[in-house]
Amino acid sequence: MERSVRERVPPLLTDLYQFTMAYAYWRAGRHQEPAVFELFFRDNPFGGGFSLFAGLQDCLQFLQSFRFKDEDVEFLLPEGTVVFARVPVMEVSGPLAVVQLLETSLLCLVNYASLVCSNAARFRLAAGSRRTLLEMGLRRAQGPDGGLTASRYSYIGGFDMTSNVQAGFLFGIPVVGTMAHSYITSFTSLQEVWPQTLKAANGENVELISRTKGLLSRVCVLLEAEPGKICEGELAAFLTYAIAYPHNFLPVIDSYSVSCSGLLNFCAVALALSELGYRPLGVRLDSGDLCKQSLEVRRVFRLCSQHFSVSTFNSLIIVGTNSFSENSMSELNKKENEIDAVGVGTHLVTCTKQPSLGCVYKLVEVRGRPRMKVSEEPEKSTVPGKKAVYRLLDTDGHPFLDVVYLAVEPPPKAGHPLSYYLREEDTSRCVTPAQVTCLWQEVFTKGQVIYPLCTAKETRAKAQSSLQTLDPKHKRLQDPDIYTVALSEKLYKLVSEIRKSSTSNGTNFLLSN
Amino acid sequence: MERSVRERVPPLLTDLYQFTMAYAYWRAGRHQEPAVFELFFRDNPFGGGFSLFAGLQDCLQFLQSFRFKDEDVEFLLPEGTVVFARVPVMEVSGPLAVVQLLETSLLCLVNYASLVCSNAARFRLAAGSRRTLLEMGLRRAQGPDGGLTASRYSYIGGFDMTSNVQAGFLFGIPVVGTMAHSYITSFTSLQEVWPQTLKAANGENVELISRTKGLLSRVCVLLEAEPGKICEGELAAFLTYAIAYPHNFLPVIDSYSVSCSGLLNFCAVALALSELGYRPLGVRLDSGDLCKQSLEVRRVFRLCSQHFSVSTFNSLIIVGTNSFSENSMSELNKKENEIDAVGVGTHLVTCTKQPSLGCVYKLVEVRGRPRMKVSEEPEKSTVPGKKAVYRLLDTDGHPFLDVVYLAVEPPPKAGHPLSYYLREEDTSRCVTPAQVTCLWQEVFTKGQVIYPLCTAKETRAKAQSSLQTLDPKHKRLQDPDIYTVALSEKLYKLVSEIRKSSTSNGTNFLLSN
Repeated sequence: MERSVRERVPPLLTDLYQFTMAYAYWRAGRHQEPAVFELFFRDNPFGGGFSLFAGLQDCLQFLQSFRFKDEDVEFLLPEGTVVFARVPVMEVSGPLAVVQLLETSLLCLVNYASLVCSNAARFRLAAGSRRTLLEMGLRRAQGPDGGLTASRYSYIGGFDMTSNVQAGFLFGIPVVGTMAHSYITSFTSLQEVWPQTLKAANGENVELISRTKGLLSRVCVLLEAEPGKICEGELAAFLTYAIAYPHNFLPVIDSYSVSCSGLLNFCAVALALSELGYRPLGVRLDSGDLCKQSLEVRRVFRLCSQHFSVSTFNSLIIVGTNSFSENSMSELNKKENEIDAVGVGTHLVTCTKQPSLGCVYKLVEVRGRPRMKVSEEPEKSTVPGKKAVYRLLDTDGHPFLDVVYLAVEPPPKAGHPLSYYLREEDTSRCVTPAQVTCLWQEVFTKGQVIYPLCTAKETRAKAQSSLQTLDPKHKRLQDPDIYTVALSEKLYKLVSEIRKSSTSNGTNFLLSN
Repeated sequence: MERSVRERVPPLLTDLYQFTMAYAYWRAGRHQEPAVFELFFRDNPFGGGFSLFAGLQDCLQFLQSFRFKDEDVEFLLPEGTVVFARVPVMEVSGPLAVVQLLETSLLCLVNYASLVCSNAARFRLAAGSRRTLLEMGLRRAQGPDGGLTASRYSYIGGFDMTSNVQAGFLFGIPVVGTMAHSYITSFTSLQEVWPQTLKAANGENVELISRTKGLLSRVCVLLEAEPGKICEGELAAFLTYAIAYPHNFLPVIDSYSVSCSGLLNFCAVALALSELGYRPLGVRLDSGDLCKQSLEVRRVFRLCSQHFSVSTFNSLIIVGTNSFSENSMSELNKKENEIDAVGVGTHLVTCTKQPSLGCVYKLVEVRGRPRMKVSEEPEKSTVPGKKAVYRLLDTDGHPFLDVVYLAVEPPPKAGHPLSYYLREEDTSRCVTPAQVTCLWQEVFTKGQVIYPLCTAKETRAKAQSSLQTLDPKHKRLQDPDIYTVALSEKLYKLVSEIRKSSTSNGTNFLLSN
């Protein structure tokens, strides 16, 4: 059941002041004046060097449901690409009252989506490309909708699968999951195992309990383990699950004791499955020192593989799930371990390292004339005017500079020198880019979405390739090199002029283009 | 437009393993076995001494929409009350497969609701009872649903108003909001003010612009301010807004400069409104040193009140909104300031200090027999058995001890000594409570909600009075005294027995009651 965006974001789901302002504009006869707002954030999240822009699809569906009249609203924005602080990621132009009304909804749809997507990208960078990443955060999100958003954008940011079934259904994300501890602890004895037989690959119905018990004794001998410490309920749970899902056997093995019970029970059941022609998948570890345990588990898998001559034991995977943070994910690369897949919940979806991106939506033009907020806190000042954003690439194809232009300026050209200004400096610099790309694309015009709506998988591929081209120095999780975002000469001079006028003569900040 | 809980929490919005487990139970013929789960969290959030339980209403509506057969599921839980770590806040009993399936949904509905409610309670404690608290977090929440949940439970936790219109509509929370900076910066000259007249209280249509300009000159003289630094666009914005909302004039005054422009423009327009018989409300400060600015603003209000003999200037309120955290809220009580109302967004709704409560949902009984997870990490072990929770109060009416009993035990009695055990100690202690309250109430049975669904306002009153009875030492925001949660003797012995049996003889952890 997919809820329409109109149900998720009803017209009243906005801040009261949007309505009071809209009415005041209407009262003053200004509601139809053409205006431009832009959406950006002031700092890259998590102390990092980049962000991924996300939330576009929700915004587009929201806009479409808003039922604008033809030609009312135009949108320009990038999608699923790497972006940096202070680069406008969305430009919204249309009648003043309407584009003002959109503020809260667009911020609400972009803020968290971009944040969690960027967070997922950092987890992916921390994990390396080899490890499988599983998103399991639904129960820790800000309610149902937060959970769905987290699943979608974690996948786009670089996760491989989700535990969230609805996200799988809506967005086509691969879903994953087998059992909780409660499943294990609900069993107490082998009498609860039912049915007790499993159809082998050759079609024969095989009695599984005594076969597994026999294998368990042999495993105990091999590993010099005490049979008396093995939990019968756990074995019953594993067997029941294996009989229900012989192709999907991946139990959690630390409900009691990994080395004294869970691992032994797993080996016995997995050996029985292998004998019947099935391929057991692996195990999940959910508590304790996962690295240390994973080494022991792998050692036992190798031993069993050799001793019992079962090749399936060579490809068993070890899943770790125990409050993984970005830091503990990075640690995995420094400590010896055999963890193939990692499940992440809380730290991913709640973005513990920085729970808000702080997107803002600022007025930059009214009636074709630039508007600027000149704040007493300099970082709260805005950059005026309708814009265009260009990304400059070096000869290696790495982006190295984003330059914000006024929309009316001719675009920079590859191979041609151009001058730019940093916000905090008074002197211009010059550079000759090997390539230039325009970051913005028109995505919504005349009431219609004109940008192809991508599947989550397509956007994921785009995001990953966008990240790929970024120089590693900007992707360092700690103390990254700052990626430069500059202003064109013309835009820089406009900012200076308005700022000067605002301190020398406050009566009118308006400057004609 | 209120979405039903069935739309918000569709059946697929859960972790995949709930389905795989349910099928495996069914396959083993165990799905109808009576089972009991309980929901609790392991640590009080934010390093504090308490939490507020919230999310009940969503859970109940979710359960009702689940369409259980008669007598299938029973619920016991408290509502809007102060709770502590490791006290079960919800007990769910019913057929094994069904109560297992509920896990993710209930966690998703309770986790964030309780967290943000507790966070709001801390902001209220930090602010003191006098200051007005405004929730403004919609744009920073995890999407639309996170924003709605934040508004509802921030109100219950102790906030007074919200900016979220839909939350006002759905939950009856007072809404608040006037204008953003973009509204101010969209104006450039007094020519944009329209209409230029306002109907005075006596019915007369009064021209407002020249009257305000005259008042502005007099304000400048009074305050020895430079008229040349005053922003005309800001004055135009204030006038337009005042004409549209003469009863709701509360502009943001720091779009340019508070002391050189915003404050002077406000005084002029507010004086004009006062002359016409209206009562201006106050100002909002959104950047810079709010405490310092508020002192200056108040000084000017007093000066104007005296000089122009306008009593309305004595009741003007000053609203501060600038990334308030719990700490900066506490600081307000230590620094001299004149801030009457504080708007909080990011730090409230994202719970920056701890973005997840970490609720868990654990199996404690199957077929009338207690179940326990004996983990290698002691704090991940569970407490077995169907329970009852009693809160003991001292002679002053302060709660001082929560004791978890087995449901089958007779309840403790006021005035009678009772013995209890701490989880980490081997010796019993004894106490005689002045009063005893049973924390749990039956709220859902035979498919029906049997607990009165409260309005947000009623639940807010309950939560605030529950907080009121708590000893201040447990409410300290830093290093609170730990509130004791203990086990009854019988429950303690059950835990010990199962633990002993799990280390000495792993074959069967089951113990009959």
